[in-house]
Order: sequence, then structure tokens, then C-alpha cells
Amino acid sequence: MSLVLTPLSNFPLIEPGDDLAELLIHSLEATDIQIADGDILVLAQKIVSKAEGRLVNLSTVEPSARANELGEITKKDARLLELILRESRAVLRTGLNTIIVEHRLGFICANAGIDHSNVRGPWGKEEDWVLLLPEDPDASARRLQEQIYAHSHIHIGVSIIDSHGRAWRNGTVGVTIGLAGVPGVVDMRGVPDLFGFRLRITQIGAADELAAAASLMMGQAAEGSPAVHVRGFPYALRNSTLTEIIRPKEQDLFR
Amino acid sequence: MSLVLTPLSNFPLIEPGDDLAELLIHSLEATDIQIADGDILVLAQKIVSKAEGRLVNLSTVEPSARANELGEITKKDARLLELILRESRAVLRTGLNTIIVEHRLGFICANAGIDHSNVRGPWGKEEDWVLLLPEDPDASARRLQEQIYAHSHIHIGVSIIDSHGRAWRNGTVGVTIGLAGVPGVVDMRGVPDLFGFRLRITQIGAADELAAAASLMMGQAAEGSPAVHVRGFPYALRNSTLTEIIRPKEQDLFR
Repeated sequence: MSLVLTPLSNFPLIEPGDDLAELLIHSLEATDIQIADGDILVLAQKIVSKAEGRLVNLSTVEPSARANELGEITKKDARLLELILRESRAVLRTGLNTIIVEHRLGFICANAGIDHSNVRGPWGKEEDWVLLLPEDPDASARRLQEQIYAHSHIHIGVSIIDSHGRAWRNGTVGVTIGLAGVPGVVDMRGVPDLFGFRLRITQIGAADELAAAASLMMGQAAEGSPAVHVRGFPYALRNSTLTEIIRPKEQDLFR
Repeated sequence: MSLVLTPLSNFPLIEPGDDLAELLIHSLEATDIQIADGDILVLAQKIVSKAEGRLVNLSTVEPSARANELGEITKKDARLLELILRESRAVLRTGLNTIIVEHRLGFICANAGIDHSNVRGPWGKEEDWVLLLPEDPDASARRLQEQIYAHSHIHIGVSIIDSHGRAWRNGTVGVTIGLAGVPGVVDMRGVPDLFGFRLRITQIGAADELAAAASLMMGQAAEGSPAVHVRGFPYALRNSTLTEIIRPKEQDLFR
């Protein structure tokens, strides 16, 4: 049994208010994919965020004193830093052109996941528009899962992903920021290995492995597709939320 | 175009001295896969390490004073800690049952990647055998690539992977520890986004995204396969080494 990841073809540019479930259903048809129980759709956060209207024009943002301070350190736009602070619980590291935060959703990432590329707003200079992450990506994923079930009576999983930098290693990789139906972590405790020993590795980051796989097929430029269909995911689908994947602060050795 | 990952079926248990290239070629045939230029084989480190005879019996290891000290802190076997120290450049964090090091190959991981599961040695108690990582995984990957080319005149990429824990997030994911032909990092600097802006994300961790994808299809228990065939990798194959993926210490904010 193979794992097959297929980018949906000709996926349209998303505008605030778009019905993402409907666009996904149309795009699956256009790509000639019949969804089946156990399939997964992996979505780039930007299409979910845009459909949900999470665009902000920087000219409407008043930087706080803290944002101005961070502007001195990072040389980033203080209005962008203000938005980053509003979307974060804590600032972990700063440097020239760098700010790493604990996002209000729990994960650690640069710029609170606020995106400046592939963003176009309804008014003003295009370069002033930025895109925040979805308000509640788990809820967004669950809603899409339910809408697709209502339309097709097929149970699929939905994962919403972003690209994050990492400690210690170069290059960004796709990671989960919200999910429905996809197990966040698969617990192998007690499973025997080939010789009957207990397994050394007991928790597999299955949702993030899937996120990385799908991210490969999204690309980052014009030819990429922000929605990838997955067949052959090797673990059973079940209810899950992002909290499964976030290591509690007190158990983290690298804050 | 889809990305298709197929675990090789009935891959044999590897013994020291086995000809891995030959076993891979047989197993590809048994799985009914005809390799083509641009395909990639992703291999779990343990089959490479075992074929290379990287088994050590703990009863032959004399712990140093430093290993005994770390034994007090971590409550791990001091002989295992001695091997971990020999395979490492630096110890980054220690705790109960935890030791995170900078491996001599450059990456950060737990236990210097020394594996105690799925290991069986030629003599003594089975639980005394451990498996070190390959001596030079880039060279191992390149050798396999060349052996497969010599046999088939097909240019494939080869990636050797392990499962690593991560800062901030629960669950292990597959990561690259050696490669041949697979780009470690894909540089998107200067590539325009959908609206002609420069891309925010400029370095894609393509080899590690592939490692995570393949790891999904390896599983960790008896039913998994340690070798995965990949077709449809979206970036051009080219020469690369692990050093592309390792962030230099002085650029790392999370040591």
C-alpha cells in the first residue's frame, strides 16, 4: 500500500468570504479525485486564513511602546511587530530581522506566522497587507471536515499546515497548526519490536510527518497548490486537536 | 503529478556484511517497482548501520569517569553513555532518562542516535547489543547510489534517515542523516510569489520533508518496512551532503 499525495490542480486564488469547502469539492472533481473514507486533505494555512478574512492592513495598526522597542532590535516594521505581539503569548528570541514567539495557539514560530507573501488586500498599497493565522485552526479544520461530510457522506481528515523554521537545522518544513480526524501523535508504547523488545520510539509525530509530506507538494511559488489530497495514510483516523502536538512548556528543554 | 511513497515489501532482516544494494534491488523487484531516473530510495539508518556492522556489545565497553557522572544524572547505563560520548561533540542537555547531544556528524539528537530496539547481535545477551549510526552516512548513501547505477544505469537519489525528537513539539519525525542526489535545502530566494512579491520563505527543508514523509511509511514496529521507494519528488536531484541541512552553531538561537 502506497502513500499518494496529489496537489489539487487549478485551485483558485481565495478571497475573504469564499466557501472553501465548495472550492475544495470542485477542485477535487477537476483533479479527477473521488474522495474515500480515510482520505485526508492538507491545506496551507493561507487559504484558510484568507477565506476567513484574516487580512490586516498595516496602515490601520498603531504600534505600542513594546512594538517600537522590538522595532529597534529587529529592524522590522513596528506595526507588524505590534500584530505579532497581539498574536503571541511570549517572545522567545529576537535578533536582526528575527523574532521567535510562542503563538497564542501554543506553538513556537517566527513572526507569529504572519505572512506577507501571496497576500493582496481589497484597498491601499498591496505591500501593506498581511495575513494572520486562522483564529482557531482546529475549529476551521473540523468545520471543513463536517461540510465535506455533509456534501459527500465521506469521512475524511483535514489538516491545516504552515511552514516553520526549526532549531538546529536549515530549511523550513511543513507542520500542523490545526487538525480534524488526523491523529496528532501516534503512541507506540508497549508495541513490540522485531525481537520482542519494547520500542525506543514511543510517540510518532504522525500529523507533522504528514504536514511535511504535503508541504513538499505545495511548493512556495506560483506553480504550487495550497491543497493536497492524501490517500494511504497508515494510521487510523480519530479525533484530535493541536494540543496533542504541543509540548508543555515545563517539559521543554529548549525554550 | 503525485508524490508516491511505497514501502518495499518483505525486506529481509539485515546482518553485518550484507550487500544492501543487492537486497534493495531484489526487494524492488519483489515489490514490482521498476526504478526510473529521478526516483529516490529512503532508508532507515538501522539497515545501513547493521549492514556496516555498527553493532556494539555493551559488555565490551568500559565507562569513563564522565560517563559514570552522566549515569548518576540520567540513570542510564554508564556503558551506553560512554558510547554516546564517543559519538558526540558536545552534551547539550541532560535529565532523568534523557541526554541530548551534538552528534559528531553535526546534528542535535537524543542518545547520539544509538538504537537499542530491533537489534540482535551475534553473541551474548540480546539486550546488551546496541547499534551506532553509520560511520559516514553521506558516503553510505553515495555508495548505494553508485551501486544501483552500476546495476541498472538509472540515476536515483538515496536518503538515509532517523527519527528525532524536536524542540517544542511532541512526537518524533523522520529527518535526514545522510544523502546522495537529494537536495538538502531548496533555495527559493528571488522566486516571485503569486503577486510578484519576494517569497517570505526562502529555504525549504526539502530533504527533511521527504524524510518525514518516508518515515510515515516505515512505521516503528514489525509491520513496517525500512526502505521506501519515492516517485514524484518535486525538485531536481543534484549532489548534496548533510552539511547543507545543519545550521552552524553560531547561527543557532536554541542551543
